[in-house]
Amino acid sequence: MKRRHFLGVAGGSGVLLQTRMAGAQSPPAPEEIYPGVWKFRLGTVEPITPVSSRKYPPAVAALRELPAAGECPVNVMGSVSKRGCLVRIPLALNTGVYGYGLQLQAFAQRGGKKRLRVNADPKMDTGDSHAPVPFFVTTRGYGVLVDTARYATFYSGGKKLKNQPAPAERGEPSAIGADALPAAYRRAGSGERTEVLAEVPEAEGVDVYVFGGPSMRLAVQRYNLFSGGGVLPPRWGLGIWYRVKSDYKQDEVLRLAAEFRDRKIPCDVIGLEPGWQTHAYSCTFEWSSKFPAPAEMIKELAAKGYKLNLWEHGFTHPSSPIYHDVAPYSGDYEVWGGVVPDFLDAKARRVFGDYHEQHHVAIGVSGYKLDECDNSDFTGNWSFPEISRFPSGADGEQMHCLFGLRYQDALQEVFERRKQRTYGLVRNSGALAAPSPYVLYSDLYDHKEFIRGMANMGFSGLLWTPELRNAQNTEDLIRRLQSVALSPMAQINGWYIKNPPWKQVERAANNADKLTPNWEEIEAQCRKVMELRMRLIPYLHAAFVRYQRQGLPPFRALVMDYPDDAGTWTVDNQFLAGDALMVAPAFAGEPSRSVYLPAGDWFDFWSGKKYAGKQKITVSPAIEEIPIFVKGGTVLPLAESTLDTGDPASWRLRAQVYGEGSAQATLFEDDGSWAPALREVNLAWDGARGQANGSRYEVIEWRKVSAAV
Amino acid sequence: MKRRHFLGVAGGSGVLLQTRMAGAQSPPAPEEIYPGVWKFRLGTVEPITPVSSRKYPPAVAALRELPAAGECPVNVMGSVSKRGCLVRIPLALNTGVYGYGLQLQAFAQRGGKKRLRVNADPKMDTGDSHAPVPFFVTTRGYGVLVDTARYATFYSGGKKLKNQPAPAERGEPSAIGADALPAAYRRAGSGERTEVLAEVPEAEGVDVYVFGGPSMRLAVQRYNLFSGGGVLPPRWGLGIWYRVKSDYKQDEVLRLAAEFRDRKIPCDVIGLEPGWQTHAYSCTFEWSSKFPAPAEMIKELAAKGYKLNLWEHGFTHPSSPIYHDVAPYSGDYEVWGGVVPDFLDAKARRVFGDYHEQHHVAIGVSGYKLDECDNSDFTGNWSFPEISRFPSGADGEQMHCLFGLRYQDALQEVFERRKQRTYGLVRNSGALAAPSPYVLYSDLYDHKEFIRGMANMGFSGLLWTPELRNAQNTEDLIRRLQSVALSPMAQINGWYIKNPPWKQVERAANNADKLTPNWEEIEAQCRKVMELRMRLIPYLHAAFVRYQRQGLPPFRALVMDYPDDAGTWTVDNQFLAGDALMVAPAFAGEPSRSVYLPAGDWFDFWSGKKYAGKQKITVSPAIEEIPIFVKGGTVLPLAESTLDTGDPASWRLRAQVYGEGSAQATLFEDDGSWAPALREVNLAWDGARGQANGSRYEVIEWRKVSAAV
Repeated sequence: MKRRHFLGVAGGSGVLLQTRMAGAQSPPAPEEIYPGVWKFRLGTVEPITPVSSRKYPPAVAALRELPAAGECPVNVMGSVSKRGCLVRIPLALNTGVYGYGLQLQAFAQRGGKKRLRVNADPKMDTGDSHAPVPFFVTTRGYGVLVDTARYATFYSGGKKLKNQPAPAERGEPSAIGADALPAAYRRAGSGERTEVLAEVPEAEGVDVYVFGGPSMRLAVQRYNLFSGGGVLPPRWGLGIWYRVKSDYKQDEVLRLAAEFRDRKIPCDVIGLEPGWQTHAYSCTFEWSSKFPAPAEMIKELAAKGYKLNLWEHGFTHPSSPIYHDVAPYSGDYEVWGGVVPDFLDAKARRVFGDYHEQHHVAIGVSGYKLDECDNSDFTGNWSFPEISRFPSGADGEQMHCLFGLRYQDALQEVFERRKQRTYGLVRNSGALAAPSPYVLYSDLYDHKEFIRGMANMGFSGLLWTPELRNAQNTEDLIRRLQSVALSPMAQINGWYIKNPPWKQVERAANNADKLTPNWEEIEAQCRKVMELRMRLIPYLHAAFVRYQRQGLPPFRALVMDYPDDAGTWTVDNQFLAGDALMVAPAFAGEPSRSVYLPAGDWFDFWSGKKYAGKQKITVSPAIEEIPIFVKGGTVLPLAESTLDTGDPASWRLRAQVYGEGSAQATLFEDDGSWAPALREVNLAWDGARGQANGSRYEVIEWRKVSAAV
Repeated sequence: MKRRHFLGVAGGSGVLLQTRMAGAQSPPAPEEIYPGVWKFRLGTVEPITPVSSRKYPPAVAALRELPAAGECPVNVMGSVSKRGCLVRIPLALNTGVYGYGLQLQAFAQRGGKKRLRVNADPKMDTGDSHAPVPFFVTTRGYGVLVDTARYATFYSGGKKLKNQPAPAERGEPSAIGADALPAAYRRAGSGERTEVLAEVPEAEGVDVYVFGGPSMRLAVQRYNLFSGGGVLPPRWGLGIWYRVKSDYKQDEVLRLAAEFRDRKIPCDVIGLEPGWQTHAYSCTFEWSSKFPAPAEMIKELAAKGYKLNLWEHGFTHPSSPIYHDVAPYSGDYEVWGGVVPDFLDAKARRVFGDYHEQHHVAIGVSGYKLDECDNSDFTGNWSFPEISRFPSGADGEQMHCLFGLRYQDALQEVFERRKQRTYGLVRNSGALAAPSPYVLYSDLYDHKEFIRGMANMGFSGLLWTPELRNAQNTEDLIRRLQSVALSPMAQINGWYIKNPPWKQVERAANNADKLTPNWEEIEAQCRKVMELRMRLIPYLHAAFVRYQRQGLPPFRALVMDYPDDAGTWTVDNQFLAGDALMVAPAFAGEPSRSVYLPAGDWFDFWSGKKYAGKQKITVSPAIEEIPIFVKGGTVLPLAESTLDTGDPASWRLRAQVYGEGSAQATLFEDDGSWAPALREVNLAWDGARGQANGSRYEVIEWRKVSAAV
């Protein structure tokens, strides 16, 4: 097999080297395309990639405001053969690798191999994912995006060429010695200099983007700002979401909405699940006779403070009103007898979006749940094959890598035209997704896998909800609801049950209205958890503002903030929520768990008890309490719990202060508009008393937290 | 994406058609390359394929002796694009599809999608397998081999092009109506005419071989004869195999061998597991100090009637005596610090084989267990990457598809030179494997998956053992031993336990010599099961002779013999053993199970009770009894149970007759030589008494079976 070798040339065209081993040459100094962002063009790139099909432009002004990254941290080399394009990126001693999108079977990726295939049912640790992303970030503080819409394979170190030393890398190895590394890292050969290899099938070249730090956080921030900056959900998007049973009719929806208000269940968004349309597999996008007056229903819901979210998928049934207009812009293979819109084509997006605007959004639909876009093709022909061809020129493999992203775009174009913010759910996403107002979901996982997703999502510009459904028992219900409450979307999914799960977790009994005898007690416990979520909205909202403005993920793994603390390198069952909170979810059936506290002081959110960092502790949380630790030196604003975010009381705050000395927090007043002014509110604590300058926000109490006796 | 379209042309070079849809053209009549075997060359084929690298030539004479197949049952078309080569094979109404090698997650493949990737740890039903084979066979009585050493993707019907009817197919649809089909088939759209699509990545063409029937069995027979005919194991290979604990020293091996004889445990082959060599990961192939006198040990074992089998894998450590000779013929990536021999290259095979011959086979080693050749690369760098390059020109993907096969060849060349038959174990195999004397194994499966493998292996020319290890409890031990006893290799794997599993199933207790109080009782039960195996050897041996001579798999799914009975189409937990026995294994924890009996009379092996066919029955087998059903009209020869096959008593038979009227059976006297004469012995029953013409075989009793009261 012959290979042509390229040196990466920043910004320009790939230079073909005739030498067999390009590694021996000294590559030209790379150029920055944005501050701290370098582009290497290797060979002749494919026309369809995440970058070439992107909707959101890079947030250039924000990129300019980040601290300087220094020089390009790694040189990228490539070669081309009949197999495709092979990218080589040096990997230094004792360096951890993270990312690759929504990986639910693995966290620390050093030494691993991932083939980034879109697959709705990934049960093996081989890279299959609902949302694979060809981006990784290292503990040495740089990130790399291989700009491809193909199922690329990444070898994250661990491969050694016979008789050849691994290529040297600029700069010094990480300060962390091999001895300090977790055992998994030592096994993965992290004590050697090696390289990350990325094979892009079929391609004769690829663009590779390198994001400088110098910190791991800054590298991720640069990637997210290059993506366009993180999404800022409307405040209602951060409230409680409840999806009703799939066969609910209009009056049942309204009855449940009324019941929630009567029983003081917080809820901002009601979702309608499959079955509501005249034809669901594939979709017509038409209201069925179960909803005789959708506009009136939406009005009635709005009067009670609810938004409405609609389930759908993109495969379009022949009986759909848009079929004949969308069919010319669709792939050559059918799914469930419907066509697959070519969402890479603006005309398909427009036909699709126009109908949604006119029949849904114009009457008040707030957003969508985009199902089935994550390639269930291995599960009985539930998607289009990779051999598909689309009018845009994409084949099925490229379309799978971009389908969720460009589907989100199709609907976002509607909300953009209407200057209206949305927030929704999606089952597939990919590279450069940070600005898109969609949260990934799937019900295929156990609680620990859900939490691993919470730890992983922040590496790759994704949001993920460990949505609550199918709880095994009351303990599982509450434990999972607690995790949901600390996630990007507090979604309770009751598509399969007539009554809310706190009335009865068992499906058949629930649907037979056989309620758990002490359901009111369980409801009260769940209400408390939902109230915790409502109280955290101002804090979480501010974290999302930083996601938008600085690219900093609102939820992220510990290692991203503490890469120099090897104790965090394999922690995949805890995560940071914003800058001040660290969450260590409790799991049903496990009365105690171990928690790693990174450097610094940490306060138990519930008891106020103070812990020193850089240690592992064991906690035995009461059923009402999800372990949350507040960083020392924090002002934590907690809102009044309201039934929805439209209640003015939701702007009233109690500020809790953790640690000695002065501290401050910044919130942002969001009026919900398309481009909100986001007036800054500073909560300042001088060591003795606090002050705030809110216009809408009002601090009604300051409290210095100290441990309960 | 542009595609070039080809019509298949039997035997010749691919013809490039400029028309976009070749399907509209009438393809030229295909030519047979062997009786009932047609070759379609599509485009420009790759130099390295299963056929081009095959060791065993087609069994042409045997192919000529099969009944005529009629005309070519399907036309094959193809096209080429940058993605690779796409093969299209029509698939008719109500037609079942089976095969694709050792698939353990699925049986009936119609409507499914499989990417045939070699993977040592396949947990999803996506096509990953220890031994994927790009061959399928249909209930309409034809088979198709796509001759590729790439991870091809097969869509077995169910894909529908927009606005295009599926291509028509010659001939009439199967006699089975849609109503008679199992629900899974109806869901998979088998009521439509569609096509099998096979995408071969990277290739600019591929040879496709079609194997005619007209029956499903004959199609598989033709495939196996094209492969070279099935393997005929030496009689000792059909005895009991026991692998000792990995850290056993020479004296411990001999002590256990003596104990087996003392305690009347049948055993023909003792295997040594990892740890016995001076360096195991990667391998030196040298005896370690634990075996100070291997030749003497082998002699002492032989005196007791034992053969010795050695564990190894192919990755060669720098300290191995063959390292410097094999390294020039090895891949560019290391595995466990060792080199990967390029077994496609005769020189690598020779260096590798010569050492094995001189240091192992010459002193009496009977064969090998070839581990780690099935691409554990997703499990922490335990194999070579697909981007590897080998001196033969293969890349890593091609090498993974052929590694197990050509590794088997490397050792087979030794045994061939010595004119000595062998039988061994291997973890990877592929296309055209029927003649190779190796049985697939892996310990990653539960009992039901093991049995699904037993049902699937016969479609693709593979052998598979549901080897016994890690039984959960005594019931599981006995149930799994029973399945092992009815398999191609009766292997008990004690690599992790000091004492045989019947003394104690629990690992820690076993290794602490804490034996189960009633172990002698359990041992007696296990002995009975092993004795059953020993009694069946003449019968199984005859089934293997038919495998060799006629290509008929000795173990196969019910559907292969009864494709017109839709009741068999989804039966993946029963299998035929030879022509007369149908096995329905019992599983621990399930006191009863349902058994499907195809058309004809069936007799319970244990009670003699007669059942009419074409019905489902429920059986509740006693712990001593694995459900076995004997076909009416059978003479079943049962040997005397001996401790090993070298005992002359193993030739003494009791013939059991099932059903009324005359019946007969044929056995073959095998002297164990390289090319045995296989003198035919006929056991003829005239309805009242029996007669046999054995020279070695002696029938000491004839018994007409009737139901016990």
